[in-house]
Amino acid sequence: MSSHREKLHSIIFEADTPLGKFFDLGLIVSVIFSVVVVMLESVESIRNAYRTQLVILEWYFTIVFSIEYLLRIYCVKKPSKYIFSFFGLVDFFSIIPTYLSLIFPGAQGLLIIRTLRLLRIFRVLKLHRYTTAGKILAKALTQSRHKIIVFLAVVMTMTLILGTIMYLVEGRANGFNSIPLAIYWAIVTITTVGYGDLVPHTVIGQALASVLMIVGYGILAVPTGIISVEIANVSKSHEFTRSCPTCLKEGHETDAIYCSKCGQHL
Amino acid sequence: MSSHREKLHSIIFEADTPLGKFFDLGLIVSVIFSVVVVMLESVESIRNAYRTQLVILEWYFTIVFSIEYLLRIYCVKKPSKYIFSFFGLVDFFSIIPTYLSLIFPGAQGLLIIRTLRLLRIFRVLKLHRYTTAGKILAKALTQSRHKIIVFLAVVMTMTLILGTIMYLVEGRANGFNSIPLAIYWAIVTITTVGYGDLVPHTVIGQALASVLMIVGYGILAVPTGIISVEIANVSKSHEFTRSCPTCLKEGHETDAIYCSKCGQHL
Amino acid sequence: MSSHREKLHSIIFEADTPLGKFFDLGLIVSVIFSVVVVMLESVESIRNAYRTQLVILEWYFTIVFSIEYLLRIYCVKKPSKYIFSFFGLVDFFSIIPTYLSLIFPGAQGLLIIRTLRLLRIFRVLKLHRYTTAGKILAKALTQSRHKIIVFLAVVMTMTLILGTIMYLVEGRANGFNSIPLAIYWAIVTITTVGYGDLVPHTVIGQALASVLMIVGYGILAVPTGIISVEIANVSKSHEFTRSCPTCLKEGHETDAIYCSKCGQHL
Amino acid sequence: MSSHREKLHSIIFEADTPLGKFFDLGLIVSVIFSVVVVMLESVESIRNAYRTQLVILEWYFTIVFSIEYLLRIYCVKKPSKYIFSFFGLVDFFSIIPTYLSLIFPGAQGLLIIRTLRLLRIFRVLKLHRYTTAGKILAKALTQSRHKIIVFLAVVMTMTLILGTIMYLVEGRANGFNSIPLAIYWAIVTITTVGYGDLVPHTVIGQALASVLMIVGYGILAVPTGIISVEIANVSKSHEFTRSCPTCLKEGHETDAIYCSKCGQHL
Repeated sequence: MSSHREKLHSIIFEADTPLGKFFDLGLIVSVIFSVVVVMLESVESIRNAYRTQLVILEWYFTIVFSIEYLLRIYCVKKPSKYIFSFFGLVDFFSIIPTYLSLIFPGAQGLLIIRTLRLLRIFRVLKLHRYTTAGKILAKALTQSRHKIIVFLAVVMTMTLILGTIMYLVEGRANGFNSIPLAIYWAIVTITTVGYGDLVPHTVIGQALASVLMIVGYGILAVPTGIISVEIANVSKSHEFTRSCPTCLKEGHETDAIYCSKCGQHL
Repeated sequence: MSSHREKLHSIIFEADTPLGKFFDLGLIVSVIFSVVVVMLESVESIRNAYRTQLVILEWYFTIVFSIEYLLRIYCVKKPSKYIFSFFGLVDFFSIIPTYLSLIFPGAQGLLIIRTLRLLRIFRVLKLHRYTTAGKILAKALTQSRHKIIVFLAVVMTMTLILGTIMYLVEGRANGFNSIPLAIYWAIVTITTVGYGDLVPHTVIGQALASVLMIVGYGILAVPTGIISVEIANVSKSHEFTRSCPTCLKEGHETDAIYCSKCGQHL
Repeated sequence: MSSHREKLHSIIFEADTPLGKFFDLGLIVSVIFSVVVVMLESVESIRNAYRTQLVILEWYFTIVFSIEYLLRIYCVKKPSKYIFSFFGLVDFFSIIPTYLSLIFPGAQGLLIIRTLRLLRIFRVLKLHRYTTAGKILAKALTQSRHKIIVFLAVVMTMTLILGTIMYLVEGRANGFNSIPLAIYWAIVTITTVGYGDLVPHTVIGQALASVLMIVGYGILAVPTGIISVEIANVSKSHEFTRSCPTCLKEGHETDAIYCSKCGQHL
Repeated sequence: MSSHREKLHSIIFEADTPLGKFFDLGLIVSVIFSVVVVMLESVESIRNAYRTQLVILEWYFTIVFSIEYLLRIYCVKKPSKYIFSFFGLVDFFSIIPTYLSLIFPGAQGLLIIRTLRLLRIFRVLKLHRYTTAGKILAKALTQSRHKIIVFLAVVMTMTLILGTIMYLVEGRANGFNSIPLAIYWAIVTITTVGYGDLVPHTVIGQALASVLMIVGYGILAVPTGIISVEIANVSKSHEFTRSCPTCLKEGHETDAIYCSKCGQHL
């Protein structure tokens, strides 16, 4: 690999050098602007007033991001590895909608995928801390996935059953037109969202809804409990890794100088 | 018991053999399809367009599940034990509504009970992990039931009192037509669901509602705290796997030196 | 005190003897019935159909409870202590509204205070467990009161400020007619109740509301965290009270026979 | 500094002497009254009826607070330090809107900033406990900020993506007029507020909304878990009050035998 490609690689993929930092910062600002352009384009009054400017900006950002995408492929050692990585796919899908919109009008809406590119922001900020925090959260969620799945299975079954009963109790007259709609209502209720577009009108329906609400209110505690415990476990194992070389007592504070059990210098 | 019945038993009730796994998988796919059929039937436009096909599918699944139910009774050692077990009752009630619908039209809606059969899914997936997760959650809920009941008693009393006060404050003019309806409103509010079908209109009513909301928002922390602590306790006792080599007592703390039951050095 | 009064005292105030248990059970059933009567009376259609029966039942329960109240005063050693105790006041205020309704019609609504009498139910159930559970919850809430008050002060200040800003931003045109109403809206939003009777219509208002929602969603974690930690502390101090008489190591499990540190018999 | 200024300083800035306590109490009562006046002025019916009285009261409080502000500057050693402190700025911005309203009518609404002055209340109450509670909460939030930011970044990205998809799915016909509005809807939904001013009408939209609700309901557990763990950690380090007699290092574990900093036997 030529030193030219290596230098390009360090600018584009790393954030240690001043140039690399500058590149990442410029990228994030561009992404924010391009996301704002997509959003503004969806507002009717703005689109009608500034149609030409918005189209120009959209193509400008798409071309800039396309060049960046090609440069990334060019300077990386194994292009296929980058292309099929998470960020590689995000980079690809954040430029393709504009080209697609030439064939299918309306595809630009998908440009919002560019938002995902913002996740690169953690590279510029004090990287390590956020990565650690993210890893702890991810690990806690991974370790509690069996409990979460069991919990969700119970909740989903409950909404299916109670939704159907509500369909039978309230019926079409009160807006519960079908079982899927009644299940949608049950989810809206058990998650305590409560839009109010569909509400029980019969006394039995209101009693059943009350039960569902109290259950939903109470079992919200279950995932919280699960995840709290896992975060506590993961945090603990991340924090305490120092052990005394003499008596092997573990769990010393990070600023401890002497072992709290045998008094040896750590 | 003939070896023929034994073989059937291992296919239907166990998931260790390839045939048993295949049977369970087929069963779950059938259950999902039959639940979807029940749901689709409740959507008016679909029912009008495909009435005949849906009736045929419904009877097809009912007959298949009926045969399966009879086979289960046939090949199990003690039929009465199966029949009155949780899954035995679920299996029974998931076929009976179709037969009932011959006499009482509309009873098919109850077919949604078939959803409960989906709980068998955990048998096919990596069974042990989910069963353990389920047991931990069930144990945590069981151990915290006294606290949860005290909590719910306080919440219910609060909704009764505040619901009645709101009935007196807002009155029929603002839609609070009766005390039960006002209590329904109080439950909707304290659980933070907030449909908005019934809202306070007077200044005093809005002030009282604000108090109820903040209380509901704050005390949501109570069940969460209860269950978090229990999950932590149950998880810990599941994690401690040090067992005494003499008396086999499990659950010793990681820094224990002597067995807490028989006094032997660990 | 005559033995006659003592016997009456043991029946009315205690639940140890069969007669005392029977009395408490009868009382609770009467309370539930009388609360149901109050609720039914508030439903217009029922009141019009059964007016006479409901009035008779209301007076029947009021007279029964009045006799019970007088008997309690008669058989207790220090009447003034009972009269001004929590349950003494509840007993008084659960009979007085019926008498008041002779002078002020409509006062019967206050009869719902009778609900509070249901709290006696814990005396009949396995008393000790629920009392312990209640004490743990009460102690956890008491110990965390300083943190909860600081938290509520911050939340209330936030709703005052943001409510006023919304009043200035949205204005009368969008239904935010006054600062108190806007504060009511802010409370509805920050507690995630979200009735939807008052919603932002301007873009700035929706942006501010979004901030308020995310803040409300996030800080819900604060009281939960506070109470979880206190419940954990209180539970721990309730569970582990056994200490080794030899080495004074504390925190033995309730079924431990030998000390886990020095091996001594507990 | 003259003893006159010193005495004034102890009255205005401290709450130890009877006069200082009296001053603080009077101040808090004044602040509450002045906030109530601002609120009442925004209610149309009250403003029309008592316009003159309210204007007089507003100017009365503004002048009293202005005198207090000048006295504070006069008696403090380093005025600039006070002026740019948190409470200094709050004191300034809680008097300036009335003067501004002479030039810009309507600026009085900002007087609600006076609410922030209520935070002084903790000085009069048993100060230390609330300050400690506040510090523990602040420290817990500070220590968990990296995790909270990662969490919020994920939530915001999710609302951006799902909001845009809903804009494409539901479209203008169902009220999702622009991407920013759809994102507002996504925030209302994921935080479980659920106003109901904007609801999905298509089947796909309702399915997507259901996913968003369940996700929102589930991930509410994440910040709670984060903050619970931090509060537990911070509380623990506050509770551990064993300090080394040699080096005064605090926060030793209850079973520590040697100081973890200087190695001395405790």
